Amino acid sequence: MSALSHRDMDEFSLIERYFRRHQPGATDLELGIGDDAAIVRVPADRHLVVSVDTLVAGRHFQRDTAAADIGHKALAVNLSDLAAMGAAPRWWWLALSLPDADAHWLEAFSGGMFALAEQYDMALAGGDLVCGPLVVTMTVAGLVAPDQALCRRGAAAGDAIYVTGTLGAAALALRYQQAPAAPLHRPRPRVEAGRALVGLATACVDISDGLGIDLGQLLTASGVGATLDPAALPLPTTAVDVSGTQLWELAISGGDDYELCFTVPSAREQELPQRLCGIDVQLTRLGYTRRGAGLHWRTRDGACFRPSVAGYRHFG
Amino acid sequence: MSALSHRDMDEFSLIERYFRRHQPGATDLELGIGDDAAIVRVPADRHLVVSVDTLVAGRHFQRDTAAADIGHKALAVNLSDLAAMGAAPRWWWLALSLPDADAHWLEAFSGGMFALAEQYDMALAGGDLVCGPLVVTMTVAGLVAPDQALCRRGAAAGDAIYVTGTLGAAALALRYQQAPAAPLHRPRPRVEAGRALVGLATACVDISDGLGIDLGQLLTASGVGATLDPAALPLPTTAVDVSGTQLWELAISGGDDYELCFTVPSAREQELPQRLCGIDVQLTRLGYTRRGAGLHWRTRDGACFRPSVAGYRHFG
Repeated sequence: MSALSHRDMDEFSLIERYFRRHQPGATDLELGIGDDAAIVRVPADRHLVVSVDTLVAGRHFQRDTAAADIGHKALAVNLSDLAAMGAAPRWWWLALSLPDADAHWLEAFSGGMFALAEQYDMALAGGDLVCGPLVVTMTVAGLVAPDQALCRRGAAAGDAIYVTGTLGAAALALRYQQAPAAPLHRPRPRVEAGRALVGLATACVDISDGLGIDLGQLLTASGVGATLDPAALPLPTTAVDVSGTQLWELAISGGDDYELCFTVPSAREQELPQRLCGIDVQLTRLGYTRRGAGLHWRTRDGACFRPSVAGYRHFG
Repeated sequence: MSALSHRDMDEFSLIERYFRRHQPGATDLELGIGDDAAIVRVPADRHLVVSVDTLVAGRHFQRDTAAADIGHKALAVNLSDLAAMGAAPRWWWLALSLPDADAHWLEAFSGGMFALAEQYDMALAGGDLVCGPLVVTMTVAGLVAPDQALCRRGAAAGDAIYVTGTLGAAALALRYQQAPAAPLHRPRPRVEAGRALVGLATACVDISDGLGIDLGQLLTASGVGATLDPAALPLPTTAVDVSGTQLWELAISGGDDYELCFTVPSAREQELPQRLCGIDVQLTRLGYTRRGAGLHWRTRDGACFRPSVAGYRHFG
C-alpha cells in the first residue's frame, strides 16, 4: 500500500481520524463510537430490520478496486437488503479487517461509505477495526411499521412480477471489463422504491446472487411458480459484441445487480405509477406468478431457455 | 481441512444445516434466517445496545484453535461488551468468511456458538456466510432500560475501582502454552454481573485489550485518574516459573481477559455483596479514582511500576 502508512497509529487514533464524524441525523443514537457498545432508540411503533453482509477482497470485489468504491459497495449491498424489506435505514456498524493502516485508503474508503450514508441520514454507530486480510462486514439496521415489512413469502398465484432498473450490467462490466463500471462498483440501492412499495407489494427480494436464484427463492417461499419470457428482461445497453441470448444469461445469472424484484396483485398494478411517482426508477413487468413450483423461461414461440448457471454460488 | 468437505453444498444448504435451529427464546424475533434481513421487536421501554467484534485467524486466535472454541469465543467477546454496558443479550448475527465448507468444522463451530447463546436465551437472527480467509464477525444486540446503561464515562473522583475474576490467565496460557487454556479459548462473559451492577456502578468497561488500556479509557472518559498498587491485582494461580512482576505485567497488559472493571461510589461499596449475591464471580478492589488524569502503578513502598507495554495494539 501507500508509503503514507500509519504504522504508528493504533486503532483508537484511526477510528477517531477516519470514522468519527459529526452526524446530523444521529439524534436517536444515544451512545455512538467510543464505548463498549452503541445504544440506539427504536421508536415504540417500529420494528427493527437488520441486515449483515461481508465482502471479501478478491472474491466480492477485485483487489485493485478503488477504496471509495469498496466503501460505497459494502454499505450499498446492505441497504439493498433493507430496501427489499421496505425499511428506512437508520444506523450502521462497520467491521473492517485490513492489512495495513494506510491513510489514503482509509480516507477514500470512509469517504465512499459516508457519502452514501448521508443520502439516507444514517449514522455510523460503531464497529471494529482489526489487522488482517481485507474483509469488510457491515451491519445495517432500519425501521419498518409492525407487520408492514416486505418478505420473500407473500406472493399469490396470478400476482404480477416486476423488477426495477436493468439486469446484467454489473456482470457485463465484470466479464467484459466494459465501461461503464459504475453498475459493478457503485450499485444504487433502491431504498426509496422499496419503502414506496410497502402496503402494495405482496413479496419482494433484492437481486444480489442473480434473478434466477433470488426470484426463485421468492417463488419458493411464497409457494408459487412462474414461467417467464426472457424477452421481457430489462437489459442494459452495451457496445460489447454479445448476443441477445448471452445478455439474457447475464441478466438471469450474473448477479450483483441490487435491483428489487417484487410481486403485486394484478388488480392493483395500476397503483404502481402513483406509488413510485417522483422516484427515479425504471419498472419492468416480467410476467405473472402461477400455481405450482419452479421458475422457467420460455420464449414467445414456446422454446425453453435454460441458463447455464442459475446464479452466484458462494461455495463450490 | 477435513475430507468430509461439502464442496457441492451452496451457502443456503450450509445455513439450513448448521445455523438454522429451533430457538425457544426467539419469541421477539419476527423474521429470522432466510429472508433479506431479520426483523426483531424492541420493547418500548428498552434501548437497544449493539456490539460488533471481528476475530481474524492467526491474529485473534491460533489457526489450530478448535472450531468449537472459535464459535464460543467470537460470541463471548461480544457478550462481554454487552455485559460491560449492563445489557441483557437478545439476538446475534454471524458474518462468517471461511476458506472451505468443511462439515466437521461447521458442526463444531456452530455447536460452540449455540451452546453459549443458549445460556442467555439468545436467538441467531441472521448473518452472512461467504468463502474467504477465516474471519468471524459477530453483531450482538441486547436491551437496557433508558439511561441505565453502564458507560465508560461516569466515574467521579474517589470512586472505588473493582475488577471481576483474575487478570492475566489468558496471556499466561498464550505465552507459556500453559494449561489450563480455558481462559484463552473459552472466556466467560460477565453478563450476569454487568446486569447486576446497573444502578450502582458509575462506569464500566470490559477488559479485552488489557487492564492498562481499558481502565485507562474509562478514566479518560470520566475525566479522572488513578494511582494503584499492582499488589492489589487479582492474579491467576500458575505452575509456570514466572516472577511476581511478570505476572503484574501480564495482568495489566496481557489482554483477552474479558473481565469487567467498574467504579462504585465509595459510600455504596457495601451494596456490592447483595447485588452480586448468587452470581459466581470474584471481586477485587484495585483502589480509588482521584482527581487529575492518568493511570499509574505504585507499590506500597512508593516505587513506580511501569509495564513495558500498555496492552494489545491492533496495528503497528
